[in-house]
Amino acid sequence: MRLAECRIGIIGLGLMGGSLAEALRGHCRQLLGADRDAGTRRQARQLGTVNVVGENGMLLAEADLAVLAVPVRASLDLMDKMGAELPAPPRLLDLGSTKVEVAKKMERLPEGVEPIGGHPMCGKEMAGFAARDRDLFQGSRFVLTPLARTGKEVVTLLQELVGALGAKPITMTPEDHDRLVAVSSHLPYLAAAALVRRGRTAAAEDSRLVDLMASGFRDSTRLAASDPDMMLDILLTNRSHLLREVQSFQRELACVEGLVRRGGDELAQELAALAATKEKWTHSSDPQEAVDEPQAHWPGP
Amino acid sequence: MRLAECRIGIIGLGLMGGSLAEALRGHCRQLLGADRDAGTRRQARQLGTVNVVGENGMLLAEADLAVLAVPVRASLDLMDKMGAELPAPPRLLDLGSTKVEVAKKMERLPEGVEPIGGHPMCGKEMAGFAARDRDLFQGSRFVLTPLARTGKEVVTLLQELVGALGAKPITMTPEDHDRLVAVSSHLPYLAAAALVRRGRTAAAEDSRLVDLMASGFRDSTRLAASDPDMMLDILLTNRSHLLREVQSFQRELACVEGLVRRGGDELAQELAALAATKEKWTHSSDPQEAVDEPQAHWPGP
Repeated sequence: MRLAECRIGIIGLGLMGGSLAEALRGHCRQLLGADRDAGTRRQARQLGTVNVVGENGMLLAEADLAVLAVPVRASLDLMDKMGAELPAPPRLLDLGSTKVEVAKKMERLPEGVEPIGGHPMCGKEMAGFAARDRDLFQGSRFVLTPLARTGKEVVTLLQELVGALGAKPITMTPEDHDRLVAVSSHLPYLAAAALVRRGRTAAAEDSRLVDLMASGFRDSTRLAASDPDMMLDILLTNRSHLLREVQSFQRELACVEGLVRRGGDELAQELAALAATKEKWTHSSDPQEAVDEPQAHWPGP
Repeated sequence: MRLAECRIGIIGLGLMGGSLAEALRGHCRQLLGADRDAGTRRQARQLGTVNVVGENGMLLAEADLAVLAVPVRASLDLMDKMGAELPAPPRLLDLGSTKVEVAKKMERLPEGVEPIGGHPMCGKEMAGFAARDRDLFQGSRFVLTPLARTGKEVVTLLQELVGALGAKPITMTPEDHDRLVAVSSHLPYLAAAALVRRGRTAAAEDSRLVDLMASGFRDSTRLAASDPDMMLDILLTNRSHLLREVQSFQRELACVEGLVRRGGDELAQELAALAATKEKWTHSSDPQEAVDEPQAHWPGP
């Protein structure tokens, strides 16, 4: 099945689901949308963000590809009900930010379902339908985590979908995904949370601190403004990797502290090396520059 | 003396000094510039960034207000020489990111000098003349740290200068400044450095990590790309505050780790509280919103 023939049903029209709907307009046969919030449903209908607004059950029954764009634990709940209280869709994509728990649940879906995990590596610190942005995915990576049971046809469809969003697919196992995003996303979130905690205490002692929070502090703590519901589910479904990362981070901080304490050339060299590493990443993280060969990573059918 | 009558001599035409020169054009009588880099001197002359390019000695002899826009330890060295190897200027502003060491040195300047510390709360992760930006100071805070010996006339001149840059002056003691920026700037830098160290190790084990470094990781580590020479001086001249902040941050991290380990409502509530705090700061850190009454903070003459 090609994307152009596909009826896509999106459950959850928040930042991710709403942006996905707008970015897919014109690329697929029909867009169906569901959301627990009545205001969002009304707006999505009025603005034509999707062609049809309905209930979860209707979407799962009618879509060729159902997309779960809700916090991770809500996705797990919905999958628990598929084939029982809710219809089981022929193809299922989940957009949650952790993939191991999702993959475990996907393995137990009824036989007729072709499931695949996905994680668009983009976001904003705003949540909800109002924050949607049709260009959200442009130029970013989109991780796909097929299961052993996922057919090649679905992977191909998803790669077409990712391309239509202006993103670049990268395929890996759910385990590798969760281990890597613990470093690249979840640890930075906890570091931002700890910085905000320290700033909160210090600002309570001297309110002028808030005047001195310039762009450095703002950027360093930006992630702490992420949607708390989404983050809660992420932290709880990737807890073991995350706790290990916090330990590693504390060790790195202790090293940095030792360097500052001792001063001298060793500190100067490390600051220069870290700036150079950061600079290198800035260039190599441009998806246009890097090579991706998804076939090489696929687990066999 | 009013700004319009003032000959301003800027030592160091990097990001700060170069931006200052461009932002002050048309606001003062004459701009003199010095830089240790021959290419920068040539460009500043050709582009007319300053009216006159010369040696440090000429600038310090001829300027009504000399501005030190070099790394902190270079500022300290220059002040050591004033009144001996180098002329002592009538008025002296230093733009370094730490102020206690600078203030100690300023106290010992020859009698005819009216010194004042300054710290524009803005920046970029790029350094050098090429990174200059006449709008760099627009809308940001500019800390002034007058000494007991600093006359009111100089403070008034500096407030006029800060206003001409489109910034908002905030006056405090050097001690308060260094204590507060340890939280708002230097701790976030070390946190970014520790994140880059962790990322470097993890990427060496699995290079796909670099593909997953999305905007969250990039923003959280932006400060690690700061000019290493500048940062080295900052860390070494604010070491005691900074080491205390690292300890506080480690404690906050341990609290966050405990919350994640225990999960539940306590974690959910804290994530929501931190997002709300971050949101509140985003609004209150807008200089247009806040009130500043510098008179109230001045140390007496």
